[in-house]
Amino acid sequence: MSPALVHSISELRRLLAPLRAPGATIGCVPTMGALHEGHGRLIERARADCRTVVVTLFVNPIQFNRSDDLERYPRTLDTDLRFCEQRGVDFVFAPDAAEMFPAEPLARVDVDRLADRLCGPFRPGHFRGVATVVAKLFNIVQPDRAYFGEKDAQQLAVIERMTLDLNFPVTIVPVATVREADGLAMSSRNARLSPEQRRSAAVLYRALEAARERLAAGGSTAEQAEDAARAALAGVPDVRVEYLEIVDAEMQPVREIAGPVRIAIAAWIGDVRLIDNVLFEPR
Amino acid sequence: MSPALVHSISELRRLLAPLRAPGATIGCVPTMGALHEGHGRLIERARADCRTVVVTLFVNPIQFNRSDDLERYPRTLDTDLRFCEQRGVDFVFAPDAAEMFPAEPLARVDVDRLADRLCGPFRPGHFRGVATVVAKLFNIVQPDRAYFGEKDAQQLAVIERMTLDLNFPVTIVPVATVREADGLAMSSRNARLSPEQRRSAAVLYRALEAARERLAAGGSTAEQAEDAARAALAGVPDVRVEYLEIVDAEMQPVREIAGPVRIAIAAWIGDVRLIDNVLFEPR
Repeated sequence: MSPALVHSISELRRLLAPLRAPGATIGCVPTMGALHEGHGRLIERARADCRTVVVTLFVNPIQFNRSDDLERYPRTLDTDLRFCEQRGVDFVFAPDAAEMFPAEPLARVDVDRLADRLCGPFRPGHFRGVATVVAKLFNIVQPDRAYFGEKDAQQLAVIERMTLDLNFPVTIVPVATVREADGLAMSSRNARLSPEQRRSAAVLYRALEAARERLAAGGSTAEQAEDAARAALAGVPDVRVEYLEIVDAEMQPVREIAGPVRIAIAAWIGDVRLIDNVLFEPR
Repeated sequence: MSPALVHSISELRRLLAPLRAPGATIGCVPTMGALHEGHGRLIERARADCRTVVVTLFVNPIQFNRSDDLERYPRTLDTDLRFCEQRGVDFVFAPDAAEMFPAEPLARVDVDRLADRLCGPFRPGHFRGVATVVAKLFNIVQPDRAYFGEKDAQQLAVIERMTLDLNFPVTIVPVATVREADGLAMSSRNARLSPEQRRSAAVLYRALEAARERLAAGGSTAEQAEDAARAALAGVPDVRVEYLEIVDAEMQPVREIAGPVRIAIAAWIGDVRLIDNVLFEPR
């Protein structure tokens, strides 16, 4: 059965109201559309967990710090709807910007510290935009569970902390990154790479794996692991690293590896910015 | 019947869950305790509107910019409970600070512009603290309706805008200020006034009324109305005006009176800070 396509907040609330009952779990998968197998995994997980699955498609203008990135972000509603239909989604909520921001938005949600490093300095206002729109979507959908991909590890950390600190009655479910055969993390932005850039892009994951292997071998500092990643990146054409950093659960840089860490990278390939990360847990 | 006194978030959610049903309205009256007839009016209104009434008692540390004010804020749980019992409250939620802030709070809610004037500059962080804790209480209680007094007009404006911008599924119900026989707005802080200060305090409302009468007579600017208020204040002992301002619905100062405005005052009487306001609507 086709998912119900809903554009208005009041209509979505009206449709979801009779589906709320103790034990009748509502799962939400917030996306910006241009759905790929990474989103597919989120949806499958929601479908397995919940009686009602809502996928939101909203290219959120307030989380883009560059207007060219916002303009170029792929919009593929018809394909996305078929994608959701094939995976048994119940509701697709696709509001336009005027529905989500009918007035100048004056209220905003920030998460200190977790948003300060990694992508934070390079994308001013990005995590404020993410936290604010996710707070809105939580209040609109009122899900019991919400699904987010680990590819956006810092976003996930920000949303988990917002949910905890503001007591949103929502369980955040992290879902593992889905990768292409050569290791490239799936991303809606991959579609903008030329064939040659696409080949180069696989180095991001190879670099993260090189760092992880260095740590797994034991006795290495974060700096040495980062050097291993940079060695893997050297000589691959058209890759400009924005940051490469090993961070703790609060997204703060670590020097000595004492607990679980994320090795995180952001890099430009041509005019496309990609991010990726892997987890390393010492034994 | 006595209200159920609940200290834990999970317990409150457990008790409220079976009371949620379409049409079974839950009303919330967020307070800092030290209840007086102003709160009484909020509770009565909630009792008339809703099947379930929850009063929250929490002296919110993050909205106090002065630690002496926080320490001196009256705490009267036993009296408050009897007050709620007499008014048919169903649940009194009285968490301690560790229940509300188990970890360092990193997520915060701000409302731009509306928090910038009046009390904003004099109480740095106050409205952030208010918006953040009200967001938390909304997520904990998940009320259909929430009741706030017009005495705190700027707080009410901030909460209304937060609710609108973040799509909280809560109807905000403003309730008129309750006054003593001499016009003094009821406030938990009034208890800290000496008898002589208490007599002086009545001038705040007289000053606001003088400004309102000046506007009602027609042809006056905001400045002229403010002058009328200041004339009323002159010569009353022990009153130090912090601000006296005429503002629009977004709490921005107005010069010419074209629509509804609030005439707002904050003043210190000894070491007690009081605020008040009245509405003026041109015909």
